[in-house]
Order: sequence, then structure tokens, then C-alpha cells
Amino acid sequence: MTPVRIGLIGFGYWGPNLARNFHAMPTCELAAICDSNPERLDKAALQYRSSTLYADVDKLLDSDIDAIALATPARSHYALARAALEAGKHVLVEKPLAMTTHEARELVDLAAAQGLVLAVGHVFIYNPAVHYVKSLLNSGALGDVYYLYSTRVNLGRVQSDINALWSIAPHDISIYLYLLDQMPTMVSARGARYLHGEVEDVVFLILSFPNGVLAHTQVSWLDPSKVRHLTLVGSQKMVVYDDLADEGKVKIYDKGVSRFTDAQYGEYQYRLHAGDIVIPKLPLAEPLRAECDDFIQAIQTGKKPVADGANGLQVVRVLEAAQQSLLQDGQPVTLAPQA
Amino acid sequence: MTPVRIGLIGFGYWGPNLARNFHAMPTCELAAICDSNPERLDKAALQYRSSTLYADVDKLLDSDIDAIALATPARSHYALARAALEAGKHVLVEKPLAMTTHEARELVDLAAAQGLVLAVGHVFIYNPAVHYVKSLLNSGALGDVYYLYSTRVNLGRVQSDINALWSIAPHDISIYLYLLDQMPTMVSARGARYLHGEVEDVVFLILSFPNGVLAHTQVSWLDPSKVRHLTLVGSQKMVVYDDLADEGKVKIYDKGVSRFTDAQYGEYQYRLHAGDIVIPKLPLAEPLRAECDDFIQAIQTGKKPVADGANGLQVVRVLEAAQQSLLQDGQPVTLAPQA
Amino acid sequence: MTPVRIGLIGFGYWGPNLARNFHAMPTCELAAICDSNPERLDKAALQYRSSTLYADVDKLLDSDIDAIALATPARSHYALARAALEAGKHVLVEKPLAMTTHEARELVDLAAAQGLVLAVGHVFIYNPAVHYVKSLLNSGALGDVYYLYSTRVNLGRVQSDINALWSIAPHDISIYLYLLDQMPTMVSARGARYLHGEVEDVVFLILSFPNGVLAHTQVSWLDPSKVRHLTLVGSQKMVVYDDLADEGKVKIYDKGVSRFTDAQYGEYQYRLHAGDIVIPKLPLAEPLRAECDDFIQAIQTGKKPVADGANGLQVVRVLEAAQQSLLQDGQPVTLAPQA
Amino acid sequence: MTPVRIGLIGFGYWGPNLARNFHAMPTCELAAICDSNPERLDKAALQYRSSTLYADVDKLLDSDIDAIALATPARSHYALARAALEAGKHVLVEKPLAMTTHEARELVDLAAAQGLVLAVGHVFIYNPAVHYVKSLLNSGALGDVYYLYSTRVNLGRVQSDINALWSIAPHDISIYLYLLDQMPTMVSARGARYLHGEVEDVVFLILSFPNGVLAHTQVSWLDPSKVRHLTLVGSQKMVVYDDLADEGKVKIYDKGVSRFTDAQYGEYQYRLHAGDIVIPKLPLAEPLRAECDDFIQAIQTGKKPVADGANGLQVVRVLEAAQQSLLQDGQPVTLAPQA
Repeated sequence: MTPVRIGLIGFGYWGPNLARNFHAMPTCELAAICDSNPERLDKAALQYRSSTLYADVDKLLDSDIDAIALATPARSHYALARAALEAGKHVLVEKPLAMTTHEARELVDLAAAQGLVLAVGHVFIYNPAVHYVKSLLNSGALGDVYYLYSTRVNLGRVQSDINALWSIAPHDISIYLYLLDQMPTMVSARGARYLHGEVEDVVFLILSFPNGVLAHTQVSWLDPSKVRHLTLVGSQKMVVYDDLADEGKVKIYDKGVSRFTDAQYGEYQYRLHAGDIVIPKLPLAEPLRAECDDFIQAIQTGKKPVADGANGLQVVRVLEAAQQSLLQDGQPVTLAPQA
Repeated sequence: MTPVRIGLIGFGYWGPNLARNFHAMPTCELAAICDSNPERLDKAALQYRSSTLYADVDKLLDSDIDAIALATPARSHYALARAALEAGKHVLVEKPLAMTTHEARELVDLAAAQGLVLAVGHVFIYNPAVHYVKSLLNSGALGDVYYLYSTRVNLGRVQSDINALWSIAPHDISIYLYLLDQMPTMVSARGARYLHGEVEDVVFLILSFPNGVLAHTQVSWLDPSKVRHLTLVGSQKMVVYDDLADEGKVKIYDKGVSRFTDAQYGEYQYRLHAGDIVIPKLPLAEPLRAECDDFIQAIQTGKKPVADGANGLQVVRVLEAAQQSLLQDGQPVTLAPQA
Repeated sequence: MTPVRIGLIGFGYWGPNLARNFHAMPTCELAAICDSNPERLDKAALQYRSSTLYADVDKLLDSDIDAIALATPARSHYALARAALEAGKHVLVEKPLAMTTHEARELVDLAAAQGLVLAVGHVFIYNPAVHYVKSLLNSGALGDVYYLYSTRVNLGRVQSDINALWSIAPHDISIYLYLLDQMPTMVSARGARYLHGEVEDVVFLILSFPNGVLAHTQVSWLDPSKVRHLTLVGSQKMVVYDDLADEGKVKIYDKGVSRFTDAQYGEYQYRLHAGDIVIPKLPLAEPLRAECDDFIQAIQTGKKPVADGANGLQVVRVLEAAQQSLLQDGQPVTLAPQA
Repeated sequence: MTPVRIGLIGFGYWGPNLARNFHAMPTCELAAICDSNPERLDKAALQYRSSTLYADVDKLLDSDIDAIALATPARSHYALARAALEAGKHVLVEKPLAMTTHEARELVDLAAAQGLVLAVGHVFIYNPAVHYVKSLLNSGALGDVYYLYSTRVNLGRVQSDINALWSIAPHDISIYLYLLDQMPTMVSARGARYLHGEVEDVVFLILSFPNGVLAHTQVSWLDPSKVRHLTLVGSQKMVVYDDLADEGKVKIYDKGVSRFTDAQYGEYQYRLHAGDIVIPKLPLAEPLRAECDDFIQAIQTGKKPVADGANGLQVVRVLEAAQQSLLQDGQPVTLAPQA
């Protein structure tokens, strides 16, 4: 099969990771790299000598590449993805797919109309640890899902154009939608702007799913330590996924429940007991590589990518509702059952 | 000075800890122990041979003790504290002081009218680690407070009469009020009932303080691991207080901020850098002992206890507002500036 | 059955722990406490009002107690245990049983001659975690034992009369003998005196067991952190026992071995792979309580205590050989097959 | 200055790391890569398209390169380094420099006679964490050095031609020599062969330095967890360097000593107290890059590399003595004051 010719737009923070993966894959060719910043382009030239370099997106889109990977600031995603689709290129967009539901849906529709692949960089749903948690869930071993919560904070790169919700939480939201296989019915978010007053540096987000399932996420770029932690509490077992753990990223906690009668007040009481803990050996695959592979295979075989445009749209719907709640001091916002 | 004669009501989960401390203090005498449960009373008899035992509260209140320590279920606090104050006894009530603002205020007023000490078991504001964080704050070393968050979860004792908010969050709320020295202006809480459907097993709580300070707390008794963790992010430094840490419960994180111009988009950007971390040596005092000492000294010297009734009332006000938000799917509830 | 009347000698660092346990056991009575230090005796009086107090050992031995628990400095063990046995009392001696093999054997023989119980405070062989490791070993699940190592260090109490080997390593040695069920054939030890020049503050000890099994131990009271860690590497699985772990003291590591041929040098090579990790739920028993129970049961039923005098003697034999090696710059010392 | 033309021999486990660094440095050119294994050479070709490839060392040495980097199995170091020096090339040899003191000295002498740079890949003495510990030591802040110990174990790559001592311990030995700036006077080592009976899989090594300083190292490739840990205990402070720590690789522990008189036995006693802990921010330099830079600068400026041949020789002398002790069941082996 002919290797897919990829053009990468954006060689800043994340673009080099996409470049490294596409370069290493036999199924595609990193044909071109585009960045309006000359320093970055020089850096790209040094590492990828056989790729054509562009300072101008239009020229790249005019060239004979098959697909575009977009690693530019979030606010540029919609316009660039649209231009690429209109130019007949398959597109992989970094998360979030767009900044509004309306724009996201437009991209999905455009890709469908053009018969092109539209994929979104929800890299965590290509993660072996997330797959493992999903398989546990599907097997019924965890029992009913009670609640989930995640913390994704660090001391790091402060965005100036989008807040921590749009910058960081797409990861958590995409994981929740993937694990629970349904959309939340209500969203609320609180946050605050500390550093330069234009975007929220820290956001606390709660999603209500059917059957009383709650999912909470805390995101920030002002926190002292890097934390990438997700807990799922089920009626039978609990799972913790710590992306930074040295010794196994997933821990499965068994538990027991005992019920006893309180002699003094004559009421039933519950006591929960810790049980064995298992840390399973996970495959050592790089999630970003799996994401890139999935994109290329979708182009070559016509299969739908796991993180396709529709998936990207759902995540944007949740983000948009959360943003609305954020602007209303955390008022819960109801999500319509269908987009 | 004559030792204060203490009568302890409740020898269940927490009562034995109070007994151990009062017994060991030269300034007081554990004169009596009262519990309606005969097994518990037998246990108390074995350990505290010189204390008089009561199955009936009224008889205890009729006796010549000076003060009462209340370690009974939360819903009994108000009635028992009221009876004790009316009987002319000083009272130390386990948290929460009462189940409504109205009742809490009544107790505060009654104690004032009777000229008796009313103290509340907010044990964490007697904790050397919390004192250390407070002194850092007061010194200005942390800069402006941005936000705080705490996690207080475990797999444990499920209450049947009160939810995780009323059972666990008084600790966090009392710490926040102590550190920030002011009341929140708005409270919201989300939670869910999983185990037996009558009380929330998990609650996420957000307090908005003046000047944009946010404080978030997560409490649960369904979580796989025991976590007692509080983070304070300031403009200059950050502090983490981990009550279960082996090597120093408090960590102070220095940081640097650099501002640079993004060449591609011409915008200012911020990048935060980790700096040195310091783990200070803290005094090894038992917080509960300090709480008991403070109560006895208040009785003996007339000084106000740190966790006095007014403090207990403020915490109940926050809990009540949070409970209201909880019943309204997390609608933010505004707290009047004064009670 | 009549409760055994216990007399405790030594109410310094460890004695209070023995007192607490014997006091709480229905099968015995903490009849007497003896310490030549008046302050300690006052402290004992306050906590154990029904125990008779002695400043003088001889008077205690003349009283009608059944058994003695010895928690005095190591160099006094032999003489006091001997006196107690001669006075017809059963004896529980804190580790080490004595300071020479000769003395240890004399105590064993004397106890046998008198028909009295002689037990040694090897508290770790009453530890549920050690029992769990032993049961894994016996089940064959670990495969052949390759090697073991332990670290038992902290920043703490510096002994003036015995070195870190005699003070700390009896724990590790008793665990090794218990797990492997045999004596080492060769012992070597290196150490150094830093603090006051009379005893070694840090010691590295190696025991060679039959079949090539090595056991290494590092003990020190000058180390920055408290560590209580033992690793057992078997041909099939590996076990780590961390006595200070928050989440399960025992971890079982599965592994796989793959063999491949190095293309360049034509040699077979091995690569080892990590597998699943299991952290089993262990019973929550206090090891010291189990030790005290075992002593009382031995007195009441005639059964041999797990840590009996013979066991104490074996540990002293290893210590004596290690001491000899220590004085010879680590020259390996051979242990005769039978004592 | 003309870039130094480097030829790399060995593209197996470590060679690719050297290639990556030399490739990224403007001061040199990765002119050639040599490996007898065709698969590896193909892999090299893909990544380094401008480097000339050789299957045969002699041809590489005949070419116009300036310097050789050797990343081949340890037993080949001497012959290849010798050939390279004889061909007039500067040489960077992976550790250990050679398998005997005799061979190592021959290489040092040959390089001197030829006026060529001979450097050894003791990468840890280019590590910012090790530099930090050294600067603390030199500043006197740690007081007198008491003892050091390190653990360098993992579950991993089992060597077939050299044992764990020669494979892993050169790192620890080079760190010790660098920190203490002197040679040990006595060496002992114990180890055992479990996996395939030809080389020791686990080794315990003790070095005695002047003034009673002990340094202990444990190396193994059979251990369940990866550990890279070094502790230095000084009379004033203690330092722990954990190469795998998430939050700062170096921790500095303050301590206090109190001396008191034991009332019972009338002896002085010491008690050590933990103090503050500081985790300094370290520079984020890659040690291997610093090693490669040092080699190139030595070639270009004539300055001596930090890890020069003489340094490599000293490490080999310690290894040789340790090997001798290993073969004699841990008999201490004395090192002559000068080589």
C-alpha cells in the first residue's frame, strides 16, 4: 500500500511529537512540515531533512500531500481543519476539535460530505491503561460504576488564548465518554483566573451521567506537582490509574462490605474493608503512536478512527456546557440528550 | 488549681480518644463516662477504673462534674449540649456543633448567657502542620492566596445518620476558615448516594472566598485509599499538607514565573518553573491533646478556646449552605455576610 | 484457667509496650513492674495502678509471680534471665537472648532442667507479613530462593552498650532463620564506629546459606530515613515486605524470563520481564500481642513457643560469628553445622 | 573550529544514545557508525542518513575520522580501544575501560604516548545531582563523611559475558571516587550466580576508604524493582540521591544530636533528631550530553576530560580487587596506595 503523505502544521510544543511518530511509521511519509515561525522551521529542517518545509499553510494545502496533522493553537483548529478538508485532505486535529459545538459539527459534516477522515487527538483513549480499565468495566468485575474523579494538574505552560478547561480537560472528558459510553446529562464548572486575568488557570468540573454516576475533574497549570490521576469507584472494585506511577499505572482494589447493627442506636451500619490490590502488567505501547496508526489506517482502509470527528464533537459539547457553567459561577447546565 | 472534673458522653468510635487524653492530663480528672451501650461501658470500666460509669445522661448531668465532653452521633449534639449547658456544665462538642445554624446559634447564646465554655472538636485547627501553614501565610511568604483544595477520603466507616459532608467536611471547612480568617461568600456542593440511598457517600464542595479565592474539598468513605491532603497555591509559593506523609507532613514549593513572547502569535506567555522544596521539621504534639488542653484552660482561665462555639457556628453555617446546594444539584448558595 | 501472674523488669523504651499487651490480655495479669529508675516507676504506677512496683529485682523474684518479662539492656539479659529461671519463673527475654553463645546455651539448658518456658522477643516472627512470606515460600509459588536482603535503618536511639548489629540485626536474622528454616554456613560483617567510638553505628552483614542462598542486611541508627524493608528474590516470583508501607506491607512480583541469541556475539542472553504485582490483604494482628499470647500459652499448655530459647540461641550464634567477622575487617567466619 | 568527526562502534543497547547526542552537537559530526550486526546497521542507516556505515572495524579505523566512541561489550574494549589509539584516533570507551588493571594502564600509556584523548563513559560523574552532592561535600555543609551506600538494581538485561559487578558497579565506584577524591584501601565483595551459572547476578561490595569511611554498593539484575539510590551520611547532614525520584533527585536532611545521661545505668546516651529536609532545584542537563561535550572539548582544546583514562584505570583497579574478593568468598583485598 502506498504510504500516506502527511503534512504537519505546527512545530511548537506538540508538533514535534507527531513528527517523530509519523516519521517512524512505515505506512506513511512525513512529507511536509509547516510553521510560520522561522526558528521552529529551522529546527524541523535539522531533524527531518527529507520533509518539505512551508511557512505558509496555503502552499502546503496546494501540495500533493494526502493528509494534514494539525498541532496549532486551539483557536486556529476550526479554520485550518476546514481549509484542509476543503482542499481534499484527511485531517487529524489536536484536541479540542474546535471552540464551539457549531464549528465542530460543521467540520464533522464537511468531512462526511467530502468522504475524508476527520480524527481528533484524544490521545488518552489510545492508552493501554485506559483500555485496561475499560475492559475491566466491560467484564463486570468492577460492578456498577459509582463515581470517577481525575486530577490533571502541574506547574507549567500557561496558555494565553484558552483556559485550563479547554486546554487540559478534553483529556479527562474523552476518557469519561470512552469508559462510560454515554454523554453526561448535566455539567457544572467552577474556576478562577489568577495569573493574567484573561483565562481560568484552575477549573473544577463535574459531569452527571445517567444512573447517578458522577465524574469530577480538577485541572490547573498552577499546581506545585504534576499529577495525572484517575479513580473509578465501582460497587465491587475500585481502580486507580496513575499515569506517572513507576510501578504499574493501574491498580485494582478489591473490597468487602460488612453490615452490622449499631447497638446504641439500633440502626444498620456499613463498614467497608480493603482487600487485595492487583497491579497488572500492561503493554508498553506509546499511545500517540497508536493514535497516529489509527489515523493512517482509517485513511487506508476506510475504517472509522476510534477518536473520530463525532467523538471530538461530543467532547466539545461537554466543554461548551462547562464553559457556560463557568461563566455562571457553577450553575449546572443541562445537556440535551442529542446534539 | 483544682483539676476540672470531666464527664465523657459516648464511648464508641471517638470517645476513647478523648478519654485517653483527659485521663493523661494533670489539669483535669476523667470523673465519669456515660454510654447507653453496656458493652462499651464495660470496656470503659476496664480501662478507667477510677471513673464513675453512667448508662443514663441525666444522672451524669446531675452529678458534681464541671464539664462535659460529647462524643455521640451528630444528630444528638444539640440536645445533649443544651441539656449540659442548662445543667451548668462547660461543654466540648465533637464536630459538627449542631445540625442547623439555628441550633448552633442557640447553643452559643446559651453558653454566653450561662457564662460557660462551649468548645467544638475541630481538631485540625490544633494541628502543628496547620499552624505552620497559617504562620507561612501570615508571614507573607506565600504571596497572595490563589486557591486551596483538599481531599479527605478513605474506605471506611459509613455513617447512616449523616452524610459525608456533615461527617467529614467539617475538618476541611474549619481549616479553611482558620487559614483564611474569613467566611466564604458562596458555597456549592455536589454529591451522590450509592450505598444505602439515605445519605451522600461522596461530596464535592466548593467555597468562594472574597478576592477570588476558591477552596475545593472532596470527601468520601467509598474511596480505595486513605487520603488526607491539602494544597494551598499562592502567588509566591505553594504548600502541600499531607497528614499521612512519612517524611514531614508539610512541603513548601518555591516557584518562578517567566514571561516570554510567543513568536508565532505575538502574545505574551507565562511559564512557571519549579524551585526548591523544603520540608520543615514540625513539633510532634498530638492535636487532640492540644484541643483538650485548650478546653481545660478556657475553663480554668476564662480565655476563649480557639475552636469556640462561634467557630463551630460558622462551620455549621457553611455546612448548611452546602447541604442546600447539594439538594439543588449544585446550585451555588450565597452566604449572608453576617450570621 | 488461672491467669498467669507476670512481672515485668524494665520500664524504659520497650517495657511499656509489653506492659500494655500483658495488661490487655485476659489470660494473664500484669502483677508487678520493676525498674531501678524512680521516674519510670512513677510513670508505671500512674498507668498500672493494680500492679505492684519494685525497685529491686531480687524482691520481685521473691514474690509469688509465675513469669518474668525482661525488657532491660542487652548486657543484663543473661544474668537476670538466669536469676529468674533459678527462682522458678518462666522467662520472656527481649532480643538478643544473651551476649554469647555460651551464655545463651546455659539459659536454654537451665530452662530445660527447671521445666520452665524460655522465650525470646523475636517479634518479627510473630508478624502476619512474615507469616505470609513464609506461606508463599512453603507453597512453592516463589520457586527456589535466590537471595534476600533487608534494610533496617533509622535516625534514632544510639545505644551505648551494644552496637547496631546486636541491637537491630537480631530482627533480620530471626526472620531469615524462620523463612529459610536452616542455619547459615558462613557469616561476614563490616561496620564502623562514628558517633562515640565504642560501638558500631552501622553494620553490613552477609549470611551464606546452603544452596548458594545469600542474605544481606544493613543496619544503622545514623540513617536519614526510617526504612524497614526486606526483599526475597526467588526463581519464580519476588516478594518485598515493607513494614512501613501504607498500602499493604507485602508485594508479590511476578516475572517472566526470555532467552534470546545475541546476533552479534552468538551467545544466549536472558532478559527478565516484570509481570503482575499483587498486594495481598493481611490480617491486622499486632505482632507483639501474638508474641505475648504465645508466651502465656506455652506456660499454660506446655507447647513450645515459636521463638523459644533454642531459637534465641541460634540467633546469638549468628550474631557472635558476625561480631567476630566485624572485628576482623569482614573476614568470613564459618559456622559449625551444629551448635 | 572544525567539527570533530566521530565514528561510533556498536549500535546495540547503548550506542544509539551516543549517536543521538553526537548527532545533535554542533561541535562534532557523527561521521560513521560501525556494527557487525546487519539489522542494527539498517536501523542506524534509517536514523542517521548522512553517516557512513561500516560492518568492519578495520575499515572504519582506516577512514579519515578523528575519534572513536566505543559502545561494544566490555570484553572487547581493550582490543578495540588499543586499535583505535594505534590508528591515531581519540577514544571514548564505555565503562569499564578494560577488564584488567594491566590492560587499562596500557591504554592510558598508549594514549599519552600518542598524544590522544582517552575518555571513559562514567556518565554519572557528569550528572548534575552528583555535582550537587560534591559541591555540598566541598562546602563542608555535610560535616565529615561517615558512610555512603548505593543500590543499583533492576529486573532487566542479564549479561552473559560479564557479571553484575563489572556491568553495573562501575557507576557506583566512579561516583565514590569522584565524591571522596581518593582511592579505597580495602575492598570486599560477595555475590552469587543464579541464572546461568557463569556470572554473578547479584553482588554486594564494600570499599574502605581512609578515615573509616565505608562505601557499600548492591548491584543486581534480578531485583523486582528498579532502584538507583545513593545515600551519604555525614556528621552534620545527610544526602540522598535518588535518580528515579519524581520530585527532585537530591534530598538534604538536617539533623540534630542530643546527648543525655541514662539515669538507670549512668551512661551518656545519644539521640539523633530529624530536622528540615531540602530538595534543591537542579539543572536539567542530560549527563550523557555533558560527557560527549567533555570528550569533544578535550579533543579540541587539549584539556583533560573529567572521566579520563586515569580515572577509568582507577575504577578498573577497584573492580579487579573486588573480583578477587568475590572469588574468595568475600575475603577483604588490600589495594596498594598507588597503582
